[in-house]
Amino acid sequence: MTDRAITSLTNDTVKAVRALHMRKEREATGRFLAEGLKFIGEALDQDRAPRLLLVGQDARPHPILERARNATREAGGEVVIVTHAILEKISRRDNPQTVLGVFDQAFTPLEALEPRSAPCWVALEQVRDPGNLGTIIRTADAAGCGGVILIGDCVDPFSVEAVRATMGSVFAVSITKASVEEFLTWRARWAGSVIGTRLDATVDHRAAARTRPALILMGNEQAGLTDRLAAACDVNVKIPMRGRADSLNLAVATGIMVYAATEGL
Amino acid sequence: MTDRAITSLTNDTVKAVRALHMRKEREATGRFLAEGLKFIGEALDQDRAPRLLLVGQDARPHPILERARNATREAGGEVVIVTHAILEKISRRDNPQTVLGVFDQAFTPLEALEPRSAPCWVALEQVRDPGNLGTIIRTADAAGCGGVILIGDCVDPFSVEAVRATMGSVFAVSITKASVEEFLTWRARWAGSVIGTRLDATVDHRAAARTRPALILMGNEQAGLTDRLAAACDVNVKIPMRGRADSLNLAVATGIMVYAATEGL
Repeated sequence: MTDRAITSLTNDTVKAVRALHMRKEREATGRFLAEGLKFIGEALDQDRAPRLLLVGQDARPHPILERARNATREAGGEVVIVTHAILEKISRRDNPQTVLGVFDQAFTPLEALEPRSAPCWVALEQVRDPGNLGTIIRTADAAGCGGVILIGDCVDPFSVEAVRATMGSVFAVSITKASVEEFLTWRARWAGSVIGTRLDATVDHRAAARTRPALILMGNEQAGLTDRLAAACDVNVKIPMRGRADSLNLAVATGIMVYAATEGL
Repeated sequence: MTDRAITSLTNDTVKAVRALHMRKEREATGRFLAEGLKFIGEALDQDRAPRLLLVGQDARPHPILERARNATREAGGEVVIVTHAILEKISRRDNPQTVLGVFDQAFTPLEALEPRSAPCWVALEQVRDPGNLGTIIRTADAAGCGGVILIGDCVDPFSVEAVRATMGSVFAVSITKASVEEFLTWRARWAGSVIGTRLDATVDHRAAARTRPALILMGNEQAGLTDRLAAACDVNVKIPMRGRADSLNLAVATGIMVYAATEGL
């Protein structure tokens, strides 16, 4: 079977993939772009086949690439050979990855989550920075968390920048969207501890009693956790600020919280 | 006293400030750019006056701005009024801060550091990403660390991107540059624990015995800590990877390490 080759930067398929940089287009198609063999390998390991696999003309043979070609075809997707210029154009980078995959987005509904399947979960309110969100997804995966719940108006976890920052973990942990109301209704049935993180809290983040599964709530980069969500927590804790800095980067703070919550595993 | 006003984008002063985006120019002048009142306020609190203070025409009166004007003049620097277009051009941003400061870089020599003045210090080997470095400086400040030591060929802590990520902590903690040889010689006299972080270590990061001051060594984003530096540590530890992710973002990992090392303060 010979793969289709595309050399024109204005080809419709190229245009469609490039459009995935725009949130509107991602939401309309339900798809997203993941770049590089590491990401594709992570996807395949989670039985997620690309809808479209773009392979650079110069891509060297690799076992993951072979698996990806086969998995894409078996799932009814398409494998397309493209030029370096097309890879650059799609990636908006001078040194693009030689293999790109277009995947279906996967949001897990709140009601489908199984809290007891993991010792810790992360919920983020109105997170704004795609790099932070991607890094938090990576961190949640590394710490053994079950998933990340996005409350309210958050940045898109399937943006190219967010996906890059996940380093592949976008395929490994569940991602869930919820309104504040949906979250609060669902949270009422949470069996373990719900721990909010606030700069104005008085309890040290390590002193909070925890019943697993722990649900760690983090607020947005500028304003922190809203009063409404903070009030829905069993306890609000702070990470001590001992120098001049008045806050931590959100991804760093989340890392400190989830590793404290999963200690002793 | 009336401040000089500049409206031309091609004015020499504007060109000189814009050139601070380039490492070569920062090294030649020993200066760097810090944007916004928060940064300027942090600098003033550390008795660091701007060499040049650029104030947007539309900047609203603010106590920090008044302090900055006075401090700049008293230290022999210049206050210049500029247009919004100039602020945009210098910041390379659509929504620039209305106040910019040009400061002298301050590197603290290795021999001038006082290890016992803080419970924890951070040393980074060949860190590559300016955002990571800036976030680590912010994290070190928040955790109460004394400073950040840059070993070998690291990214410039005074790049515009790194400085932004510090959120002002660039003025609060000491920043030191050292070659591997210089660091190893100096480390030999370190009184507390020197703790390396490696993915292939077998000791959990929380299990390591620590004598203060603790010196936390972190390697670069791709390759981690080199064997040479790892061998110079009292112990190498790992942060557990419990999911599919094979590593953490460097700033997140550093945050987990320094907060573990400073626990109980």
